[in-house]
Amino acid sequence: MAFSDAIIAIVITLLVLDLRPPDTEPGELLSGLLDEWPTYLAYAASYLYLAVIWMNHKSAFNRIREMDVGLQWANLAILATLALIPWPTAVIAETARTGNLEDEKVAVALYALIGALLCLSWLFFFAYLARHPDLTKEEVDDSFFQHERPRALIGVILYLAAGAAGVLIHPLVASAVFLLLPVFYAFTSHGHDSVTQLLHGGKRSGT
Amino acid sequence: MAFSDAIIAIVITLLVLDLRPPDTEPGELLSGLLDEWPTYLAYAASYLYLAVIWMNHKSAFNRIREMDVGLQWANLAILATLALIPWPTAVIAETARTGNLEDEKVAVALYALIGALLCLSWLFFFAYLARHPDLTKEEVDDSFFQHERPRALIGVILYLAAGAAGVLIHPLVASAVFLLLPVFYAFTSHGHDSVTQLLHGGKRSGT
Amino acid sequence: MAFSDAIIAIVITLLVLDLRPPDTEPGELLSGLLDEWPTYLAYAASYLYLAVIWMNHKSAFNRIREMDVGLQWANLAILATLALIPWPTAVIAETARTGNLEDEKVAVALYALIGALLCLSWLFFFAYLARHPDLTKEEVDDSFFQHERPRALIGVILYLAAGAAGVLIHPLVASAVFLLLPVFYAFTSHGHDSVTQLLHGGKRSGT
Amino acid sequence: MAFSDAIIAIVITLLVLDLRPPDTEPGELLSGLLDEWPTYLAYAASYLYLAVIWMNHKSAFNRIREMDVGLQWANLAILATLALIPWPTAVIAETARTGNLEDEKVAVALYALIGALLCLSWLFFFAYLARHPDLTKEEVDDSFFQHERPRALIGVILYLAAGAAGVLIHPLVASAVFLLLPVFYAFTSHGHDSVTQLLHGGKRSGT
Repeated sequence: MAFSDAIIAIVITLLVLDLRPPDTEPGELLSGLLDEWPTYLAYAASYLYLAVIWMNHKSAFNRIREMDVGLQWANLAILATLALIPWPTAVIAETARTGNLEDEKVAVALYALIGALLCLSWLFFFAYLARHPDLTKEEVDDSFFQHERPRALIGVILYLAAGAAGVLIHPLVASAVFLLLPVFYAFTSHGHDSVTQLLHGGKRSGT
Repeated sequence: MAFSDAIIAIVITLLVLDLRPPDTEPGELLSGLLDEWPTYLAYAASYLYLAVIWMNHKSAFNRIREMDVGLQWANLAILATLALIPWPTAVIAETARTGNLEDEKVAVALYALIGALLCLSWLFFFAYLARHPDLTKEEVDDSFFQHERPRALIGVILYLAAGAAGVLIHPLVASAVFLLLPVFYAFTSHGHDSVTQLLHGGKRSGT
Repeated sequence: MAFSDAIIAIVITLLVLDLRPPDTEPGELLSGLLDEWPTYLAYAASYLYLAVIWMNHKSAFNRIREMDVGLQWANLAILATLALIPWPTAVIAETARTGNLEDEKVAVALYALIGALLCLSWLFFFAYLARHPDLTKEEVDDSFFQHERPRALIGVILYLAAGAAGVLIHPLVASAVFLLLPVFYAFTSHGHDSVTQLLHGGKRSGT
Repeated sequence: MAFSDAIIAIVITLLVLDLRPPDTEPGELLSGLLDEWPTYLAYAASYLYLAVIWMNHKSAFNRIREMDVGLQWANLAILATLALIPWPTAVIAETARTGNLEDEKVAVALYALIGALLCLSWLFFFAYLARHPDLTKEEVDDSFFQHERPRALIGVILYLAAGAAGVLIHPLVASAVFLLLPVFYAFTSHGHDSVTQLLHGGKRSGT
């Protein structure tokens, strides 16, 4: 968990590097700061998304007894795609600032693509665990990770659909889905029971 | 603790990224370095503030036995706002360099706002623990986190008051409060007894 | 492991810092993003390489019982050279963008040099462990790290040969070797059995 | 240790951020890379210095049984000054590139100042432990940290003397001392026996 935790912690703080003193004329700092609102919204949305991913990641690993090479690669695929999130986030914030509609469509399509890839790597991760019940802890029901797969599949489909709607209808439709999907994953997370189970039954915390 | 520790460690070192070789003509490095004094002061103040936050965070977590989803979100709110600190720090340093009074007022107001939000997230965190005594260790008095709430509330009020004074009177008034508040939190921290208790009673250190 | 893990995690996420919103005219974001393809390929290749290094590092440390000063310096040499990888990666991506053949030859030579230095530090690390069997765990065969030395030596030779071929024949020949070598190290890694052994026999996980 | 380890790991990798593709005309990459040699030397020297600090830090903490607030602040002072090292390193590399003698004198004076401050915080740290033998492990001789104080005091004096010699005689004199001092600390480090002692006697590793 230390390695995964460190990567998520670094990515979540890299988001802040985009918050810089605006390059304004003397006396115009206030309007300069207010003009940066897309960056603030993008920071908030991506922080929320990464926080939800961290909780889901922790919840999954609390149920894993042992890792083999396949599971390590599935985990590295998740980490590789989540580490990309600050990039489309910055691209969306940049296009919201310049306000060109064509560019905004490209930006939401890019975000949708990365979001779908991230859900796809989760799908692979859950499917791998569903096929290898020997890797999970004894007290975890063998069907647990089978039931996690649809959550990841829904994400792949909704991110791709949001990207298509953003290009064909309006980028704001895509942005709304991007903000709502982390909320959906937050509410369907198993963070609570896993933590309880962990602290009562095991000794690795990773809080 | 590993995840929180990593985020605080990253934020505290991100502060240093603002310390760069100044962009001066040959032979003028010394004056270029001396002109950067607001950045040095801002680095020192924010490092001190984040160090105090880390000690308080450690002190609180030494008393927590178990986390539920609500507490995890409260902790993520603290981490999200403390990760913002390098941003208003850089804005204050930038305006101190250009010396425009209007901009300096905006900068201290921004710092006050982030400071108040950070204390607000601590208030929510302490209030949550006060309402859920089952999450704290047995040896921790049930009223402990109730008594922590006023410390956070004082911070919310003082940061907002400092911001108002900075805008209405002079930015230096706000800056003085920003420097004094971490000192106040340092002296009212429970870092010592919790660490002693931890090393004698438990095995997780996180030093 | 915490220190090494943190360094590898930081280096792997630093790669993403090169992914920025492209500096394009309004309406030209799509072509700007597509023009950045060498950066994407470089990100993918270096991420893969660092992931493989991490698995090999973990696999080696699972077999180490105790570190002395010599082994610590050998480990610090590995960390110093792997931390350099984002640099030649960025140089190759930059030259692929400008498309100057002379520059591309210099860039692949630089990557080959860093790659060879990294394998050389692994060679020193394995040779040190082969000469000090008292530092490995009892259940590890004394000849284990002797058999790891050729893997590192092959890397030194192949990176140098790839660099020479890149300069004398064509940079693409070198790039192909750079992409294939991590795959070779991935397939010859002992990640699997070490992890199994670790979780059954020891208590330090570092997952 | 997790927090200190993370900060040292981040600082050591931040050094690499100064290694960028040089901004050269097409076909001039090789000479551009070769012109950056002061940066490479500065990277090597600062990496070596931080590696030595990490080993000394680990060696000291292996002997500490318990931390109180005073010791935590002494540790935070060490971390604050070591986090500054990439800054004077970059300033020296920058002046070596432009080649102005006055600027080079300022740069070595700055490095000497930070180096002296770092040794001063170690001196405070060792003196605190010498006065509080109850904080060290039972098997550690009470005079151990008293004997560490002169090592730190020598550093304060030599860094200040090197800075003075760099300004009064020539910056190269100072640079030579900056390169030799980490070597001195590497050879007088107690890294080896402490690690042996740790792995045989305790369970916290921090490798």
